[in-house]
Amino acid sequence: MFKRILIANRGEIAVRIIRACQELDIETVAVYSEADANALHVQLADLSYPIGPSDASESYLNMEAILRAARETGADAIHPGYGFLSENADFADMVTKAGLTWIGPLAVTIRQVGDKDVARAAMEPSGIPMAKGSEPLTDYEMAMESAKEVGYPVILKPVSGGGGKGMFVAHNAKELTDILNVVDLEKTKFYFEHYIERSRHIEVQIVADNYGSIIHLGERECSLQRRNQKLLEESPSIALTDAMREEVGLLAIKAAKSVHYTNIGTVEFLLDLSNNQFYFMEINPRIQVEHGITEAVTGIDLVRTQIRIAAGEPLEISQKDVVFRGHAIECRINAEDPDKNFMPSPGKITKWHEPGGPRVRFDSGFTSDLSIEPYYDSLIAKIITRGRTRGDAIKIMARALKEFQVEGVKTTIALHQRILEDDFFRTGNIDTQFVKNRLQVYETTPSRRSLKELKTFATKINEINYENLLNLIN
Amino acid sequence: MFKRILIANRGEIAVRIIRACQELDIETVAVYSEADANALHVQLADLSYPIGPSDASESYLNMEAILRAARETGADAIHPGYGFLSENADFADMVTKAGLTWIGPLAVTIRQVGDKDVARAAMEPSGIPMAKGSEPLTDYEMAMESAKEVGYPVILKPVSGGGGKGMFVAHNAKELTDILNVVDLEKTKFYFEHYIERSRHIEVQIVADNYGSIIHLGERECSLQRRNQKLLEESPSIALTDAMREEVGLLAIKAAKSVHYTNIGTVEFLLDLSNNQFYFMEINPRIQVEHGITEAVTGIDLVRTQIRIAAGEPLEISQKDVVFRGHAIECRINAEDPDKNFMPSPGKITKWHEPGGPRVRFDSGFTSDLSIEPYYDSLIAKIITRGRTRGDAIKIMARALKEFQVEGVKTTIALHQRILEDDFFRTGNIDTQFVKNRLQVYETTPSRRSLKELKTFATKINEINYENLLNLIN
Repeated sequence: MFKRILIANRGEIAVRIIRACQELDIETVAVYSEADANALHVQLADLSYPIGPSDASESYLNMEAILRAARETGADAIHPGYGFLSENADFADMVTKAGLTWIGPLAVTIRQVGDKDVARAAMEPSGIPMAKGSEPLTDYEMAMESAKEVGYPVILKPVSGGGGKGMFVAHNAKELTDILNVVDLEKTKFYFEHYIERSRHIEVQIVADNYGSIIHLGERECSLQRRNQKLLEESPSIALTDAMREEVGLLAIKAAKSVHYTNIGTVEFLLDLSNNQFYFMEINPRIQVEHGITEAVTGIDLVRTQIRIAAGEPLEISQKDVVFRGHAIECRINAEDPDKNFMPSPGKITKWHEPGGPRVRFDSGFTSDLSIEPYYDSLIAKIITRGRTRGDAIKIMARALKEFQVEGVKTTIALHQRILEDDFFRTGNIDTQFVKNRLQVYETTPSRRSLKELKTFATKINEINYENLLNLIN
Repeated sequence: MFKRILIANRGEIAVRIIRACQELDIETVAVYSEADANALHVQLADLSYPIGPSDASESYLNMEAILRAARETGADAIHPGYGFLSENADFADMVTKAGLTWIGPLAVTIRQVGDKDVARAAMEPSGIPMAKGSEPLTDYEMAMESAKEVGYPVILKPVSGGGGKGMFVAHNAKELTDILNVVDLEKTKFYFEHYIERSRHIEVQIVADNYGSIIHLGERECSLQRRNQKLLEESPSIALTDAMREEVGLLAIKAAKSVHYTNIGTVEFLLDLSNNQFYFMEINPRIQVEHGITEAVTGIDLVRTQIRIAAGEPLEISQKDVVFRGHAIECRINAEDPDKNFMPSPGKITKWHEPGGPRVRFDSGFTSDLSIEPYYDSLIAKIITRGRTRGDAIKIMARALKEFQVEGVKTTIALHQRILEDDFFRTGNIDTQFVKNRLQVYETTPSRRSLKELKTFATKINEINYENLLNLIN
């Protein structure tokens, strides 16, 4: 087993990994940017090492600085968490070449699943159902032609990168033209998939050791999203029958086997609500934000599992040993201002009271008196509740949200409360458009923005969708 | 089901009950003393009502004030928590007579189990094993005579009251004389039991509805005590074989049936380590501080269960439905100063960071910026961890204790860390004298105290044991 793991991340996931390491008697090295010198992950780790300025490109994305920190502190493995360098195959290669262990799949696997084009090609021989897709788009004409072939509506997706960022939906040629006027096909490689109008986002957690054993830990329902960013996840999905659960589990294992997957990962599917058919979307070769709900219903610690597999341990259990108990829900609480188009709301935390008590798990990289920095993701806490039933988990979540008190920054707590109180949500009648269509939550028009500003904005944050785009232009 | 429950308590147990009520869609009324006007339980309840000055005798023990609060706020039931009025049969009677529901056993049962003499008499016909005991002591001569009959060592116990307070051990006539010089037999009714030198404290959680169904939820190991006050509890007990577990479960049910027990309660036993025999100690007719570890291993919510039974619901499950999973540990964190003989350490909390993450439950009545008042119990938080194995639960607890940061007051966190690191504890080699004998933690001599001061002290706090007594006198 490893002696000392460097955690190439920050915030709640860095804290999460420190916890797993402590429980395994492994020492931890935190790395931190200038803004994070007092951060909780730095406080909790055994050692800490500065890696650069506050801007992530100079610190948490600074591969050299992180490798130097690992050398200087004598770490023997690196855990990348999620985001930042976690899906960077080059970095995984560098880590391995530096004689350290990369806690994640092989670099070759990361590369393969990171390119959606390559990943889809790898899946095809096993007959895994996929939405009809195009080749990578080269120019306007080719794009318009491809869209016709794939069939409207189409979704424009970047070939690389996950996490639902940079996607655009077009229902017809006019909408597609508007989008193509804004995105830069030369800068970012895009392709189309036929867009499924009413779908659920269903993903399957897989666990594979280095010796060919692979199991799945059931599904997570992640349909509640805003701008393709997950807000609330649950496990199991109320939409799945036992037969469908088995089907999607086997599909996920098949998909993972197609790329010789090792360590833990997530296979994402869309469930088309018009025909109850699963369509493969992508494989995320890392721990997910929402991994805790799977831990809650299976009792299996996913971060410990990652570390053990990376250390060469074989899987101790087989598929039949995986037992699902109860129902778990996670709410992601962000520091964002609901009255200002959910813009990030950084600032000093002046009051902080965490929810507690039975069946509530609280994961955060913050505590009272710390500051939420503007440089990073706006996620400030994850609340996970587990009940015997879905209704029970919802009740517990409602009271936990009520308990969570944060002052000094704006949060999305009230948005989650609206979700929990919604009749459609309560009966499980949800799809990926729920937040927008049912709750009527989308970005409003910042009237001063010109199309030029918008272009810069779209290129920069790369996570605007078509409806917003039209709102912004008009 | 009830519409509105008044919680006649404060601190973490009031918060715990509020949580259960919210999850059951029941409104809550908090009551509070002057010192508690800003307390967390007041913040979290739907309604709150002042009941008097800070001294508990004028507020949390003020039956009239509490009943007035219930009337004024339209509560239809009262939950007494633990401590304060929870074992006061007269109050239970008053509540019922006021037309409200008492969330607990019948007053007649509370009265019966509250008098150890009566309780022991009720158990006798069913053949429940009990340490040899005496009649209530009338005077010095009768006491010396009784001690000889019961056989040294003897333990002097107050006939009424639970929670391990006011007990004295005497190994011979000389020690007994010293004790009898200090205690006031006229003021407090005492009796003797033969004292078991090496024992474990094993208690069984029972659940009984109003229609004759009764089950047990397994045992809790509560041997780790200081001055008969529990510090750390776990479930299951490492000392019990499956056969012993079944035996003590059946004994507990038999004991409860002897007093026609309803609602939830705890039957306490000593396990004599010289012969592996259980001896009945007492029944606690209320929720226990340590109920959460039973919730953790059974998945059954005990506070919700209390409320449902009081509302007249029948038990939904039978004994065979009770399944035990994993191992749970609780550490009680007190605001006490380890360098000053564990004297209470009240004060303003200047820093407060709670442990979190997977498999950690945190229950507290405090949060940052609140003050720990000198008037009440020094318990500030309970940390509960659950692992697949005992070793796993210990590891998780160790990292949770490390995460818990409290400044402004002294705490017992370090004492718990010493326990977790101890080899005897790790192998489960513990008994009720572990903290004193193995960790060498006991009260040291406050040299300035005269015997007279000591008498006042002993009479007042009524929780000194013989070893301390000798230390204080010498």
